[in-house]
Amino acid sequence: MVKLCKESSGCIFDTLQLVGNKWVMIILLKLLEGTKRFGVLQKEIEQISPKVLTQQLKKLEREGLVTRTVYPEIPPRVEYSLTDKSQELAPLIERVIKWGEKYQLGS
Amino acid sequence: MVKLCKESSGCIFDTLQLVGNKWVMIILLKLLEGTKRFGVLQKEIEQISPKVLTQQLKKLEREGLVTRTVYPEIPPRVEYSLTDKSQELAPLIERVIKWGEKYQLGS
Repeated sequence: MVKLCKESSGCIFDTLQLVGNKWVMIILLKLLEGTKRFGVLQKEIEQISPKVLTQQLKKLEREGLVTRTVYPEIPPRVEYSLTDKSQELAPLIERVIKWGEKYQLGS
Repeated sequence: MVKLCKESSGCIFDTLQLVGNKWVMIILLKLLEGTKRFGVLQKEIEQISPKVLTQQLKKLEREGLVTRTVYPEIPPRVEYSLTDKSQELAPLIERVIKWGEKYQLGS
């Protein structure tokens, strides 16, 4: 039986609290395509507000799932990319999407 | 590039709206272990309230991800199990949890 918490390896609940979020999933999916600027992400995820996108990217950066690189240009260029950690997670999210497509979810 | 919406096969967003939810993920994960009664699910998912568990199970039943079987006993026995559709999804969620364990998320 899968336990919700294990003494030495964190809680399942903590993973789900982070990953079980539609914005987190779509951001990771978008970054799986490659490094992207904030504006590009915002354009591609039409439903997200700039505020929520900023919040989610900060959270992902804090958790080590996203790398934020600032290039000292004028105006500064800021790019986001996946880390080694999230490179392993994002393909699983992609498979969830393919599962949804197979069953025509939402259509 | 993965698109958020496709004309003929629903929207990625609809899949994420459904699956990108920590309660949905934990319920499917618990039912991957086998058919369970409401009370057992509630006991195993300590953090969930009966109200939210009921809401989520109804949503999953409506989307064809959970089968609800009522046995005409006194008192009636109600059991929940995965469908063919969610049998394909739940192992992906299990892999997400294993990913979280590997990186000791939340510890």
